[in-house]
Amino acid sequence: VEFLKTAVLGVGLIGASLAGAMKGRSLTGHVTGFGRRRENLERAVEKGFIDSFEMDPGAACRDADLVVFATPVETFSSLAGRVSAFLKKGAVVIDVGSVKGLVRELEGLMPGGVSFVGCHPIAGSERSGVGAAEPGLFEGALCIITKTERTDAPVAGRVKALWEAVGSRVEFLGPEEHDRLYGLVSHFIHLAAYALVNAAGDVDSSCMRFAGPGFRDTTRIALSDPALWSNICAMNRDNMLTYIEVFRENLGLMEGLLRAGDREGLEKAFRRARQLREGIGD
Amino acid sequence: VEFLKTAVLGVGLIGASLAGAMKGRSLTGHVTGFGRRRENLERAVEKGFIDSFEMDPGAACRDADLVVFATPVETFSSLAGRVSAFLKKGAVVIDVGSVKGLVRELEGLMPGGVSFVGCHPIAGSERSGVGAAEPGLFEGALCIITKTERTDAPVAGRVKALWEAVGSRVEFLGPEEHDRLYGLVSHFIHLAAYALVNAAGDVDSSCMRFAGPGFRDTTRIALSDPALWSNICAMNRDNMLTYIEVFRENLGLMEGLLRAGDREGLEKAFRRARQLREGIGD
Repeated sequence: VEFLKTAVLGVGLIGASLAGAMKGRSLTGHVTGFGRRRENLERAVEKGFIDSFEMDPGAACRDADLVVFATPVETFSSLAGRVSAFLKKGAVVIDVGSVKGLVRELEGLMPGGVSFVGCHPIAGSERSGVGAAEPGLFEGALCIITKTERTDAPVAGRVKALWEAVGSRVEFLGPEEHDRLYGLVSHFIHLAAYALVNAAGDVDSSCMRFAGPGFRDTTRIALSDPALWSNICAMNRDNMLTYIEVFRENLGLMEGLLRAGDREGLEKAFRRARQLREGIGD
Repeated sequence: VEFLKTAVLGVGLIGASLAGAMKGRSLTGHVTGFGRRRENLERAVEKGFIDSFEMDPGAACRDADLVVFATPVETFSSLAGRVSAFLKKGAVVIDVGSVKGLVRELEGLMPGGVSFVGCHPIAGSERSGVGAAEPGLFEGALCIITKTERTDAPVAGRVKALWEAVGSRVEFLGPEEHDRLYGLVSHFIHLAAYALVNAAGDVDSSCMRFAGPGFRDTTRIALSDPALWSNICAMNRDNMLTYIEVFRENLGLMEGLLRAGDREGLEKAFRRARQLREGIGD
């Protein structure tokens, strides 16, 4: 048992899956959940993901050796304020948010003797909530751990071992580097997919019934939670604005080739994309 | 047996799959293939998709009751010119191209007594070639048949029955309506995915190793054949230019919301996309 008592704050897709994965592998003795909706917490207990729950986050954290911030990322700062008085000395606090710009702020909000380590498991899908949770979610997935000058190395090692124990491989990145990279391969991709669907809707919303597997794949992440992703994009705003501009340039390049009737130029631009994309397989 | 002898011109993903599907269901007595690469045709014979092959398209069409144009769509006009003298009276010619703007031209290139019917099976993937072919490809798929004022109704009925016999459901659209709709849900989606990958490459091509399932899904069609899709986009140029503009407006809207810090407005825009996308399921 790595962590005798674990508190999972936010029992959704990621929180419930991690709780279930830890319990299934005996990485923790007891998991207490916290969330806003009692019904959801009761369901997580029934499914065996958590052992008990509290309706107050501070109460959930009492005596916890590991605290997992798994609520929507925009709530982390206020959540830290609500629980800090209840964290015991030696506790490890991690988050599982998709944007890491606030890691330094969260480190500063921890009381003495409590270590914070930012984590971003690259798992999950457009689905959300305890209904989509499953303990195998992290198997074969990548997990980014963000390291700063305040990160306690032995604690980071324990957190790394935790993610590896649930089946993930771990890479370390600085919070800014994380947001630069995931802003590109995740946050911006969501924004672009939402914009694609809205463009299709503007032209002719009835078109979608003609869509094949290509359209489905390309726009699947537009099924993702709008509140979650608008917060993530807003929290990574400067990177987003840069990527929108670079994307617009690439669209403009293709537009120019189409207008000029430069079919070979267009093929060359498409070929470049295929080569880049081939680097990560199917 | 619906068609005693069938000629499949272009034995790639769609041509070979259709040939195999027809043979498997005894919808034809004999299939002759035509293609540029002998090796590929020999492979299609070995796999049982076709019975024999010719290296000349006219020779393949001799005595054929059904001729299938399944080469890249930009070759159809010259292909029609090469085979028209060899088509027998009463023959039915169909194509399986993804863009339909040239259907009227192809109709005009048919000799007397030969009927042309444009088809677009919404099947396949980013993969191509006989290696990816499989007779079950059309099961559960939609197939668009384009109808014009020159379409022979009984022949269109036979072609519809053919696609239904290989497992597809059929809808009729005019060629222009087809290109307007598929320009949006297919051609433009490809262009956007290629542009997305190029934008990611411009920012940092090393980013892709951090990509998760969302990036993979969203950009999978950027693995599609660049020559094929640049031709399709070029052949549907005017619709493409319109959709690029509408897409740019939607990106610009989101950019403005980000800049203004209007998180709720961004959520609303994302929510609109999710609602639209939910209409076609996962």
